[in-house]
Amino acid sequence: MTDSLRQAALDYHALPTPGKLSVELTTPAETQEDLSLAYSPGVAEPVREIAKDPEAAYRYTGKGNLVAVISNGTAILGLGNLGPLASKPVMEGKSLLFKRFADINSVDIEVEAPSPERFIETVAAIANTFGGINLEDIKAPECFQIEEALIQRCSVPIFHDDQHGTAIVTVAGMLNALEIQGKNIEDARIVCLGAGAAATACCKLLLCAGAKKEQITMLDSRGVIHSGRSDINAYKGEWARDTEMRTLDDAIEGADVFLGVSGPDLLSADQLAHMADKPVVFACSNPNPEIAPELAHATRDDLIMATGRSDYPNQVNNVLCFPFIFRGALDVRATSINEHMKLAAIEAIRKLAREEVPEEVRAGYGGVEMAFGPSYILPKPTDPRLLPEVAAAVAKAAVDSGAARLPYPEHYPLKPL
Amino acid sequence: MTDSLRQAALDYHALPTPGKLSVELTTPAETQEDLSLAYSPGVAEPVREIAKDPEAAYRYTGKGNLVAVISNGTAILGLGNLGPLASKPVMEGKSLLFKRFADINSVDIEVEAPSPERFIETVAAIANTFGGINLEDIKAPECFQIEEALIQRCSVPIFHDDQHGTAIVTVAGMLNALEIQGKNIEDARIVCLGAGAAATACCKLLLCAGAKKEQITMLDSRGVIHSGRSDINAYKGEWARDTEMRTLDDAIEGADVFLGVSGPDLLSADQLAHMADKPVVFACSNPNPEIAPELAHATRDDLIMATGRSDYPNQVNNVLCFPFIFRGALDVRATSINEHMKLAAIEAIRKLAREEVPEEVRAGYGGVEMAFGPSYILPKPTDPRLLPEVAAAVAKAAVDSGAARLPYPEHYPLKPL
Repeated sequence: MTDSLRQAALDYHALPTPGKLSVELTTPAETQEDLSLAYSPGVAEPVREIAKDPEAAYRYTGKGNLVAVISNGTAILGLGNLGPLASKPVMEGKSLLFKRFADINSVDIEVEAPSPERFIETVAAIANTFGGINLEDIKAPECFQIEEALIQRCSVPIFHDDQHGTAIVTVAGMLNALEIQGKNIEDARIVCLGAGAAATACCKLLLCAGAKKEQITMLDSRGVIHSGRSDINAYKGEWARDTEMRTLDDAIEGADVFLGVSGPDLLSADQLAHMADKPVVFACSNPNPEIAPELAHATRDDLIMATGRSDYPNQVNNVLCFPFIFRGALDVRATSINEHMKLAAIEAIRKLAREEVPEEVRAGYGGVEMAFGPSYILPKPTDPRLLPEVAAAVAKAAVDSGAARLPYPEHYPLKPL
Repeated sequence: MTDSLRQAALDYHALPTPGKLSVELTTPAETQEDLSLAYSPGVAEPVREIAKDPEAAYRYTGKGNLVAVISNGTAILGLGNLGPLASKPVMEGKSLLFKRFADINSVDIEVEAPSPERFIETVAAIANTFGGINLEDIKAPECFQIEEALIQRCSVPIFHDDQHGTAIVTVAGMLNALEIQGKNIEDARIVCLGAGAAATACCKLLLCAGAKKEQITMLDSRGVIHSGRSDINAYKGEWARDTEMRTLDDAIEGADVFLGVSGPDLLSADQLAHMADKPVVFACSNPNPEIAPELAHATRDDLIMATGRSDYPNQVNNVLCFPFIFRGALDVRATSINEHMKLAAIEAIRKLAREEVPEEVRAGYGGVEMAFGPSYILPKPTDPRLLPEVAAAVAKAAVDSGAARLPYPEHYPLKPL
């Protein structure tokens, strides 16, 4: 990042007031009479109603449209474990995206917890304040334990976006890319470089989408995860293959799909050259991908490539998913975000990439390619159709799969914001 | 409350959207470029700055103007222990008041905690998210232990408003009332009916303001707290007097001040008749005071009386204090809210009651008495001078007492909102 961009980012956060969010009133509070309804004595009435029936909290408080973005700061962006307070700009940014894209009120909570258990206790204790909880920037493998425990203990949806948001958008893009390449997910040989939260979530969701486990080779920093390794935790162990392959060179030979969720420049041109015909390369390391797009395209002209960056085609960006998956989940008061809802989100995102793009979206991107094909496998983040389409698909899947406590909303499909 | 008022209160909370608050953006977030500053990759810059220097969180995040209103729902208004979720309308109401009166962003957190220790652990773990914490509706005696522990453990100000907000406004009003009656706090014989959080905080602050401990008689539901009682906890024990008095009848004889923080109709006309000349009666039980104002004034024409109600003169209302004490504390980045700051708030509130009331305030109250005297010992909640005056007094006291981490603000006194 250049010095001037760096300064622009700092100025953006410092001005006009520190941070990016404010809390505002949605009800009048000017006169003594207003205040007697907003607070004492009037406020006793909703208190009594909620004491009688907890569901009344959705009628008389903001709970039903409120998502907490919660982190312990152990894996902030690609910067590592910098502690909870340093994660605050990211969490506030996430809250900003919830509001901007799905009109969800969102607040950030940074948790100082010396252990996963203490983090779990803390979040479980405050969970009912909110309609849902978005976990963020928590390192693996603790994030798995944390998410599992909170799903068990909380009655509101818990969603670790670094896992599942990334996975949903990745799988949506990958399925579209495979289709364009004339390949089936069921037959695809997949190499996943990286074995952290995002990598394992992507691979799990690829299985849900039809991939075969014996076709997936996962590698961590020490090479292929195989059944002979004793240096891996239980979460990685789920992906151990009984194979002779040991290195990325071994694994990449003839692979249809490369999924990189690791670090910069870890896939060489030579390795890319050894992939199967018409390969699909998702090089999602940020800001520097596993292979530079220029190099990749110079090496293979039959390639479809995606990255995490907004300045190249096919950006894998969680914002295509998390605001809308929560919108749908909140609107049917879902108790969880299950695999049916995730697959529904995938299908809705895939479908949008095939449809005519509204003129205002096109205008915002200065004429880049936006017709379904190798350079356009995913919709753009500012596409206003995402809100109505993805939220509706998720809400319907929640209702159909029994996760919803309300029927499919009468006011759906939503209007674009 | 009438049925129509009850319905008005419920409607107020349900419309136009459930609850009373929303989260809004203070920065642009329309274009791809905006988003690259608000979130990835730009957000990495403030993250790095805060990792280097935690104080940078006040420059690049909303922390410095953000107060959490936190409860476990064990003592909601006068309604008792109805649990955390039922307290949410009250906590949201408090957040609304922070914004309305002092432009402080505020979010509510309801904590499900089976013990004071778990509550403390939870709040301590999330405290650094905020610039300050307002504890609310937590029952005694746990609230004392909770507040003490959190003050020890947290680096941001912790303020239990039911104790200290109530105490500040009560003492301000009481000192003004005593002055009008021609009495000194040092000589006043004080009877405090009630021994909960608000009662003990009021009595402690009365001591700071000059009252003599041996002149204060506190009563709980079993009568006078005296040194012969074995049925009281350590917090009440602090107020045990070596006295023959056992009942309110005993204690009230010749008392100058009655402070009621107990329940409705617990002070009889006969008892009031036995107080000293020119008595001061603060009957703060809500909604029904310890003695009805009509009865009290019919019994004694030399009385000055205050209640917790907005429909009588001299309302003891915490909103005269908490928004402004936090405004001052946040603006000098105080590490605590100490007795100096509380006494400064008291003096600022007292002083406002003696000054000419702005016409717009007068107009809002339809011509009720607003000249310093028996029916006007405290300013009105909508008085716009409270913000600049109380915040300035508190900020100055924080600086003078060494609680501030910033100098007295250059932009003070604040403009009324």
